[in-house]
Amino acid sequence: MPLPTPFTAALAERFGKRFSTAEAVRTHHGHDESHFSDALPDGVVWAHSTAEVVEIVNLCREHRVPLIPYGAGSSLEGHILAVNGGLCLDLSEMNQIVAIHGEDMDAVVQPGVSRKTLNAALHGTGLFFPIDPGADASLGGMVSTRASGTNAVRYGTMRENTLGLEVVMADGRVIRTGGRARKSSAGYDLTRLFVGSEGTLGVITEVTVRLHPLPEAMSSATCAFPDVASAVQTVIQTIQLGVPVARIELLDALTVHAVNRYSKTTLREAPMLFFEFHGSPTGVEEQAQTVQEIARDNGGEGFEWATRQEDRNRLWQARHQVLHASINLVPDCKAISTDVCVPISRLAEAITGTQDDIAASGLIAPIVGHVGDGNFHVVILTHPDQPEQVEAAEALGRRIVERALALDGTCTGEHGIGIGKQDFLLAEHGDAVAVMASLKATLDPLNLLNPGKVLPPGVVQAAYRA
Amino acid sequence: MPLPTPFTAALAERFGKRFSTAEAVRTHHGHDESHFSDALPDGVVWAHSTAEVVEIVNLCREHRVPLIPYGAGSSLEGHILAVNGGLCLDLSEMNQIVAIHGEDMDAVVQPGVSRKTLNAALHGTGLFFPIDPGADASLGGMVSTRASGTNAVRYGTMRENTLGLEVVMADGRVIRTGGRARKSSAGYDLTRLFVGSEGTLGVITEVTVRLHPLPEAMSSATCAFPDVASAVQTVIQTIQLGVPVARIELLDALTVHAVNRYSKTTLREAPMLFFEFHGSPTGVEEQAQTVQEIARDNGGEGFEWATRQEDRNRLWQARHQVLHASINLVPDCKAISTDVCVPISRLAEAITGTQDDIAASGLIAPIVGHVGDGNFHVVILTHPDQPEQVEAAEALGRRIVERALALDGTCTGEHGIGIGKQDFLLAEHGDAVAVMASLKATLDPLNLLNPGKVLPPGVVQAAYRA
Repeated sequence: MPLPTPFTAALAERFGKRFSTAEAVRTHHGHDESHFSDALPDGVVWAHSTAEVVEIVNLCREHRVPLIPYGAGSSLEGHILAVNGGLCLDLSEMNQIVAIHGEDMDAVVQPGVSRKTLNAALHGTGLFFPIDPGADASLGGMVSTRASGTNAVRYGTMRENTLGLEVVMADGRVIRTGGRARKSSAGYDLTRLFVGSEGTLGVITEVTVRLHPLPEAMSSATCAFPDVASAVQTVIQTIQLGVPVARIELLDALTVHAVNRYSKTTLREAPMLFFEFHGSPTGVEEQAQTVQEIARDNGGEGFEWATRQEDRNRLWQARHQVLHASINLVPDCKAISTDVCVPISRLAEAITGTQDDIAASGLIAPIVGHVGDGNFHVVILTHPDQPEQVEAAEALGRRIVERALALDGTCTGEHGIGIGKQDFLLAEHGDAVAVMASLKATLDPLNLLNPGKVLPPGVVQAAYRA
Repeated sequence: MPLPTPFTAALAERFGKRFSTAEAVRTHHGHDESHFSDALPDGVVWAHSTAEVVEIVNLCREHRVPLIPYGAGSSLEGHILAVNGGLCLDLSEMNQIVAIHGEDMDAVVQPGVSRKTLNAALHGTGLFFPIDPGADASLGGMVSTRASGTNAVRYGTMRENTLGLEVVMADGRVIRTGGRARKSSAGYDLTRLFVGSEGTLGVITEVTVRLHPLPEAMSSATCAFPDVASAVQTVIQTIQLGVPVARIELLDALTVHAVNRYSKTTLREAPMLFFEFHGSPTGVEEQAQTVQEIARDNGGEGFEWATRQEDRNRLWQARHQVLHASINLVPDCKAISTDVCVPISRLAEAITGTQDDIAASGLIAPIVGHVGDGNFHVVILTHPDQPEQVEAAEALGRRIVERALALDGTCTGEHGIGIGKQDFLLAEHGDAVAVMASLKATLDPLNLLNPGKVLPPGVVQAAYRA
């Protein structure tokens, strides 16, 4: 459905070349890194300030046009697909670092700032921002999906690391949801309500995040295991002992193979754990020793250390490219990435069951994960033009989620619901989803903010009728 | 206003002796530990199960009777005062520990379980629950006020330590807001919406909390300083260096005097910091050494160590009794406790400004605080029958909050808004308060759940009219 003419005229007059309906632009904004089909917005506008976002939100409301906030386009669940058409609001040029408060260990940024840009700006301050999804995502997008990554086992997710937000509401009001104090009991926690709301409750125009002191010492290591189960046991025991490990990542043998091919590494092609330890020199030493003993007891076959910064960087760069490395295993394939997260005691059961399912499916599906949190991904490779393969992949994904839910887990640890996991949300949260929908209907009464995401359509319709 | 007769008849028939309108019972449930005047509920009912809570919520809705959830009665902002009359729902007999999942480091409890009861049940598991407001509060109440305490600087608050909740909604639906996975991106974060909602959005009937491994080594110490400013500088530098101190508490000289009188301790009556270090034996040693150096540079006058468990317990017991110790400084007085929290770099300014205000006011007002978080309390002592003194105390409290807000802080770090800080909530959060009120009107359309708390009446009325 094309945009109403008075609407496009108003945008063109106000934003000039920063508003576009060109097909190339719309195509670029109509797909993310998920396996879902492209869904193009009817136009794209770039905002440069909160005041401009307000104008755009107001125009969309007056003309009843859906609005899709867009950051880096790196989401994995179709979050930015314009499934109901509408206007894409590209926030990537709102990319100023507003303030770095080194003494308070926080930073205030516009939503288009990426995690790498923020860390580059922190160079020399002795501080860093730890949340690292694989992609160089925007901070606004990371807030919106409640992102995490490899450091979450020690430093938490965007839930713990977002201090406050500025948000433009559907009615054009601008609110601030929190200050810079480390804790507050002042009223309902709107910050956490917007963290993970996937652009459906408001447009985030500023983010205040926690920073962390760069540890005095850091060291990384890899360790190979005879099988995935032994590696998982090592993780479980490490966490249960309370070792404050900074990163503990599982790669199955196929993932290691993919990494070697893609990142030109020479890792041993066996199930592996990647570790990182942060702390004082003696603290790092102690942690490493404890974990080495646990690994050895579980059949771990020697630690390979990476203490020089360039070696550590190479290792984690390779880890961050696992998704692309995996997709490159098979020509012309797409990846359906699962994202379950279970209590740590159920992790072995969840992963070994998953291995059996993969074997039974006949699909190529490497396993990789932030296992210290109980979170792991299966990257199921399929050819989109082979419907029976896609069907088998979807069935495999469903089985993995069903098992995770049966084990008291969640269907998504960090990617979000988007358009692909709405039925799972219902299976996981039951009647609570209707409560979520009632909040959506209250805060976005015309259902214009990223419609079709997070909440299943039936529940949404019921909430808007109520 | 007495309760409607069919309502009391239904409760009496259903709950027998577990429903009471006796004045002694109502009086007991009509005051908390704040300085506010008693406000008695019209009746009290004790529930023993979620199903019973549903029945009670349904009865209240049918008869339009306000409902006030009640835990231990230890709130400090009038949260449980029946300012609009109604029924007090006492949850203290819902005090079962449902499950302790040692391997996953979580516990599922009914809302009436107190923090000390939970920790007693954890004895021998190697785990503990760190959140420790002074009082032996109920877990349901601690969720409701987003409580914290002395350990929050290291272990977080109830915001970080609540994994999931079971909640009875105003319409009688029972929802679960989260599972036991360490992280999840599945839908809106209802858990955090209820954490800190002070009983105004639903009745919490089950809580899943995170537990933490008991550290291998713990040691506590006290250190005296020539003045409060030097002590505060020590705190600021400790936090900025990233020392993972478990507790770092400030007591001014008057507070130490009060503690010595009340708890029969023999602490030096000077501004003091109380420390606790958790970790491996060498980790604790390292932390202690670093902090000792910082303290010495700031004029700290020697560490007194408490490493034996009974000495540590005595020290922290004394710290937890500071409120009562302070009230005991002056016969027949009440305490107005402030609770501001500021970014750590502003802490010195906030506290020295507060000292000047106290001196100018002529009031007796010891200072104590969880300064590692930037959170401190001024316990302003007043005689309720001396109106000019109460007025001066309120003016002092206002000045302290205004300064904290000007320094990018919050009016309440851990006590909540209740009935006393609603204007401050508005000053702090502006238009966001109207958004909060719209959520209240959506989830509690008859305004029966703990009405009159958190949100200023004007904002609430506007939301219900909308």
